[in-house]
Amino acid sequence: MQPIRIGILGTGTVGGGTVKLLQANAAEITRRLGCSVLVSRAASRNLERAQRICGTDVHLSTDVMDVVNAEDVDIVVELIGGTTIAKEAVIQAIKNGKHVVTANKKLLAEYGNEIFALAAEHNVMLMFEAAVAGGIPIIKALREGLAANRIQSIAGIINGTSNFILSEMRAHGSAFQSVLKQAQELGYAEADPTFDIEGHDAAHKLSIMSALAFGTPINYTHCYLEGISKLESQDIRYAEELGYRIKLLGITRRCEKGIELRVHPTLIPETRLLANVEGVMNAVLVQADMVGQTMYYGPGAGAAPTASAWWLTSWMWRD
Amino acid sequence: MQPIRIGILGTGTVGGGTVKLLQANAAEITRRLGCSVLVSRAASRNLERAQRICGTDVHLSTDVMDVVNAEDVDIVVELIGGTTIAKEAVIQAIKNGKHVVTANKKLLAEYGNEIFALAAEHNVMLMFEAAVAGGIPIIKALREGLAANRIQSIAGIINGTSNFILSEMRAHGSAFQSVLKQAQELGYAEADPTFDIEGHDAAHKLSIMSALAFGTPINYTHCYLEGISKLESQDIRYAEELGYRIKLLGITRRCEKGIELRVHPTLIPETRLLANVEGVMNAVLVQADMVGQTMYYGPGAGAAPTASAWWLTSWMWRD
Repeated sequence: MQPIRIGILGTGTVGGGTVKLLQANAAEITRRLGCSVLVSRAASRNLERAQRICGTDVHLSTDVMDVVNAEDVDIVVELIGGTTIAKEAVIQAIKNGKHVVTANKKLLAEYGNEIFALAAEHNVMLMFEAAVAGGIPIIKALREGLAANRIQSIAGIINGTSNFILSEMRAHGSAFQSVLKQAQELGYAEADPTFDIEGHDAAHKLSIMSALAFGTPINYTHCYLEGISKLESQDIRYAEELGYRIKLLGITRRCEKGIELRVHPTLIPETRLLANVEGVMNAVLVQADMVGQTMYYGPGAGAAPTASAWWLTSWMWRD
Repeated sequence: MQPIRIGILGTGTVGGGTVKLLQANAAEITRRLGCSVLVSRAASRNLERAQRICGTDVHLSTDVMDVVNAEDVDIVVELIGGTTIAKEAVIQAIKNGKHVVTANKKLLAEYGNEIFALAAEHNVMLMFEAAVAGGIPIIKALREGLAANRIQSIAGIINGTSNFILSEMRAHGSAFQSVLKQAQELGYAEADPTFDIEGHDAAHKLSIMSALAFGTPINYTHCYLEGISKLESQDIRYAEELGYRIKLLGITRRCEKGIELRVHPTLIPETRLLANVEGVMNAVLVQADMVGQTMYYGPGAGAAPTASAWWLTSWMWRD
């Protein structure tokens, strides 16, 4: 069988992780797929870095369109992020009849409806497992694992930065600002942490899960948003005295007026599994009519976990 | 598109649940599959009961071979259990070129190697999501979700009866025998509980997961087995004083000499998620090289959760 040829856009942390994973687990992947997978092309702003990562067999370019328009690429893996070049490249790849993998939750949350419609029109697959909860196969669970169920609600710890901060505040009684600084030093928080701590990242992910679970269009702009930056260590202490933990949850559920979407700090009884998810780990609790409650737990970020998610999607492309 | 036609063998608790699920969530299932699913035939020892469950549109028979040999059946769903008639029916269905769904972990643990080989030879799918951990999509996670990973180990609470007994013993300081009696009254334990409390059921499930994870033949007979019947309430109390919970775990991992398979009571630090899985719930923790630790949690038994698992597999049969 012909190998599947991958074109990678962006060779940063996750791009590098993806190439490494492919090399390290080539035999395992080939055994499971029944054919091999190779990176035929890559686009990068830094050709020297790209060459170090990809070796000499990969055709490199600084122009994403060289990958997107190439004949020898079956699947485009978009690892650029943002909604400018990434959007253009994804749309052109779809128009060229190529399957697309992306972890770009911002792109999907904001332009997903348009992009999914285009993919359907061109009969290509648009896969995005890594866009939500990193290496946890939650997208697959929602799309396939619970396919027989009417999903009623989803509640998830889907932002590792916020969960790390809340876990540390509780464990050491520390103030928000000092833990944020620590998270920045550890690389768990960005220099500008707004996107994570004010709930935007969680809302992006939540709106994608909600659309999948309920079969509705992605509706990120209507999500209620409240972050964790106003929490003080005494809030967490009082909660603990009453038998609760505070977690930043993304919650979506069917209600009488339609679908509810909200991200905010939530009190959870300390005996619940969700309350015991600590540090940068993610967990998603799904309530469905037939199966009842199921929960999916794992690392929500990092090069290897995220790269792991690419390939679980690629497995489906076997014809 | 033509509807997918199901032939059900056995119309007991799970069979009835499967038919009800199909009726209740028909619209949702059709939306996800792109075609409808109908039960065309059913075999039951009790035709009156079967008629009450299936209505008048389903062709009923007391002979499983009437279903297995029927032209108007695309997929045979085996819900009889055991390894006599069930084995015969599954083998004949495969030889007839029909896809098969089964939750019969005993059949798979004991005859799986032979049955999977036959399915491959006849180019049909043999699906068994419900055989392990009920409604939790753990088989899908192992086969697809973690396909890019080299799996290193699996540790699971995969017998609800035992976990219920251990949870109650801890919560109330009760003796094993009195909790077992209570479990029997609640329908969580069989009249002869040996199969569950001595670890055989967990070993069946573990051997199936191990084969999937490591790509090896199913090797149930070599699994080390130790149940929970010798545990006393003071064992659990002492464990708790030291910061541990006792859980019956099924553990499989790669080690130097090959693949290890064992089921026995295990001390788990109380801060670990797995230690906090209570009652009849199941949870499976997977350690894999790229993603790290992921955990899958949910109900391990019951008509609706188990029926839910059938259809997550059927979703894959779309051509």
